[in-house]
Amino acid sequence: MLLYTTARAPNPRRVEIFLREKGIEIPSRHVDIGRLEHRQQEYRQINPVQQMPSLVLDDGAVLTESIAICRYFEELHPEPSLFGTTMRERAEIEMWQRRLEMGLLLAVASVFRHSHPFMATVEVPQVPDWAAANRPKVEAFLKHFNEILADRAFVAGPRFSVADITGVVAIEFMRPARITLDPALTHVHRWFGEMGQRPSVMINPPPPAA
Amino acid sequence: MLLYTTARAPNPRRVEIFLREKGIEIPSRHVDIGRLEHRQQEYRQINPVQQMPSLVLDDGAVLTESIAICRYFEELHPEPSLFGTTMRERAEIEMWQRRLEMGLLLAVASVFRHSHPFMATVEVPQVPDWAAANRPKVEAFLKHFNEILADRAFVAGPRFSVADITGVVAIEFMRPARITLDPALTHVHRWFGEMGQRPSVMINPPPPAA
Repeated sequence: MLLYTTARAPNPRRVEIFLREKGIEIPSRHVDIGRLEHRQQEYRQINPVQQMPSLVLDDGAVLTESIAICRYFEELHPEPSLFGTTMRERAEIEMWQRRLEMGLLLAVASVFRHSHPFMATVEVPQVPDWAAANRPKVEAFLKHFNEILADRAFVAGPRFSVADITGVVAIEFMRPARITLDPALTHVHRWFGEMGQRPSVMINPPPPAA
Repeated sequence: MLLYTTARAPNPRRVEIFLREKGIEIPSRHVDIGRLEHRQQEYRQINPVQQMPSLVLDDGAVLTESIAICRYFEELHPEPSLFGTTMRERAEIEMWQRRLEMGLLLAVASVFRHSHPFMATVEVPQVPDWAAANRPKVEAFLKHFNEILADRAFVAGPRFSVADITGVVAIEFMRPARITLDPALTHVHRWFGEMGQRPSVMINPPPPAA
């Protein structure tokens, strides 16, 4: 297997944290998005839609979509489980993973992609009003998220899961999106601080905001 | 169990088609979005974020997110499998389900939510530029999708899966979003026509565009 990945992007980072939590090491190739390497022929042959990351399987088939890649590794290496071990746990983790993905990560990414000068050549057209419309969505979600975290150690219950990974990466991504995490959200701060102590998260943290 | 659902909305329809494909019948309660019943106290107590559908489990816990609900039923009633029976099949189905969800359903929904007069009081603020930016995204995705469908009967390979359900609902949703399906996309038309013959899809089709 070969993982095509890149630095400084939230989806590749989700897969990398996931692999470190599992203790899985696989060969990887770095694609430099800053130099638009993902648009060049080598990577376009791997993934025509030019998104990251991609996992090339041993028979040459290509698997994309971060969560599809994570699920594949969950089946290959079930321990420690990051998608849940009982039917009920799996349902709760899937629910929270998706809530954080659609409600937070996507909203933060929309602010970043539609307001940051770096994205002007990538996200065409940038729609500043869409960035503006997503700021209150992020704020509202975080307020709700803060209440949820008041009485639990992890996003989806008593154990660390893939839902925490999506949450961590979404909140990290607020920096380049230039969104401040309100100090009043004490439960989010507590949880995010604890997540930041995990070795899987401490490696290759995203750089300061550009 | 009790399923809170509503007519004319793509996510509830995904779950309903899924249940019919499985032959599962469960009690359901209809919430009238047109009358804003989802914002009233009864439903807000079930789901504070007021999204549809929600599944109330026998112990009172509430499961939301269409795909989390579908996965839960897949575990309860494994046959016929709609998420795949081998590791590789599950990975491909998950990949395509997500591609259709993020690349097509979300883009069509963005056009609808940000351009249709009916949504002016629901999606605040409506961002017309965002609707406009999503039209070419829908077009580009469908062109790619047409090539994919050229040599396969179903979205994720040789068998019907949850990825087909997301695709069908996304294309149905183009009508209220006022997006025309280009007649040149012959493989998409063929596939969509075949899907429309399935009893699970024929029941309660969405109404003509408002």
